[in-house]
Amino acid sequence: MNLHTDKRYEEGLQSLKELILKMGEVVEEMIALAMKSLVDRNSNLVQEVIQRDPEVNDLEIAIDDRCLELLALHQPAASDLRFITIGLKISKDLERIGDLSVNIVENALEINKEPALKPYIDLPKMASKSQTMVKDSLDAFVKRDILQAERVCKVDDEVDDLNDRIFGELVAIMKKDPESISRSTRLISIAKHLERIADHATNIAEEIIFMVKGKDIRHGKISFEE
Amino acid sequence: MNLHTDKRYEEGLQSLKELILKMGEVVEEMIALAMKSLVDRNSNLVQEVIQRDPEVNDLEIAIDDRCLELLALHQPAASDLRFITIGLKISKDLERIGDLSVNIVENALEINKEPALKPYIDLPKMASKSQTMVKDSLDAFVKRDILQAERVCKVDDEVDDLNDRIFGELVAIMKKDPESISRSTRLISIAKHLERIADHATNIAEEIIFMVKGKDIRHGKISFEE
Repeated sequence: MNLHTDKRYEEGLQSLKELILKMGEVVEEMIALAMKSLVDRNSNLVQEVIQRDPEVNDLEIAIDDRCLELLALHQPAASDLRFITIGLKISKDLERIGDLSVNIVENALEINKEPALKPYIDLPKMASKSQTMVKDSLDAFVKRDILQAERVCKVDDEVDDLNDRIFGELVAIMKKDPESISRSTRLISIAKHLERIADHATNIAEEIIFMVKGKDIRHGKISFEE
Repeated sequence: MNLHTDKRYEEGLQSLKELILKMGEVVEEMIALAMKSLVDRNSNLVQEVIQRDPEVNDLEIAIDDRCLELLALHQPAASDLRFITIGLKISKDLERIGDLSVNIVENALEINKEPALKPYIDLPKMASKSQTMVKDSLDAFVKRDILQAERVCKVDDEVDDLNDRIFGELVAIMKKDPESISRSTRLISIAKHLERIADHATNIAEEIIFMVKGKDIRHGKISFEE
């Protein structure tokens, strides 16, 4: 197996990690701003979230280009190959998380036009968990930390439970107060978007587990470390 | 640039395409069965959809393995490199479409427990459009047909419009008949799932457009054809 001591190759890998962490930071910020626009009823933040989306798309393209370049110029060995191809999958998960944050503010914008509903139940908690899962899954990726990846997968169950509970509570609210139907339905959508953000973080974590376990079996050790 | 006349390499690429088309067929069938379980109020079909999901997951892994093998053993040139890495992205889109079909039957199962609501408005139309988009996007991929990929992107706007219309109609139904709130909310979720299936088909189509246009610019011609 090649050892890839080539400096440009190592720099390329480093830059790939940095791009992925950067993209992670941007989408985490989008989730936080989107929830702030809802909780603070601040529709000015809506445009701020939407304006970040092209940056996310550009980062996806930059990551994919970097991956293709690493694959084309350096013919990486099996372990790095998997790392780089997971980079391609992660860029896609993060791009979707950006889109979902935009979907959240689109709903928040409509909700904010009507009178305030009661406090948003467990939505902020759900958002905070999902956001942390994104951060932790990317940390697990760059550190190849399988335990952290497994923790992310466990939190996903909590997020799913919160989503089910929020769904039930909002259906009950609608039944009591049909005036709240549009807003409640949109809050259900927001919960669903958060649940999907958590799913994407779980996807990332699962890829990491597969990457590390797959490699452990085939090669006995990890050849690429920070 | 290598010409890759190697027979094993060509066979590997051919097998990659076949796996992707196979995975496409399975998820298209899942969408169709999921909608049938809703429209025919046939909860026996629910298990049939859920049982296909492990097959989808296996196909995703098989496709990824085939991509990694092609990348590792054959060091493909730029144009094939992009084709193969798009294969990795498509496997993920298709896997999500399988999951979304499972989400649809989970909702259908709950809806079928209650009395029938009025006919399901434009949901079957939306499902049929989304399903065709999946098929057409994969055809565009194996044929590298940019015009077909562009047509898929256009149909996505129609699906988005249907989703907006269905949302409005179901909110109106809930306001008139609070008894329908649980079922209507679940129908809104199903519409959302279908809209996301169409989004995944659009993702695939956009990747193809980028693949072909990107390559046209860089290489002036396509080196890999069926």
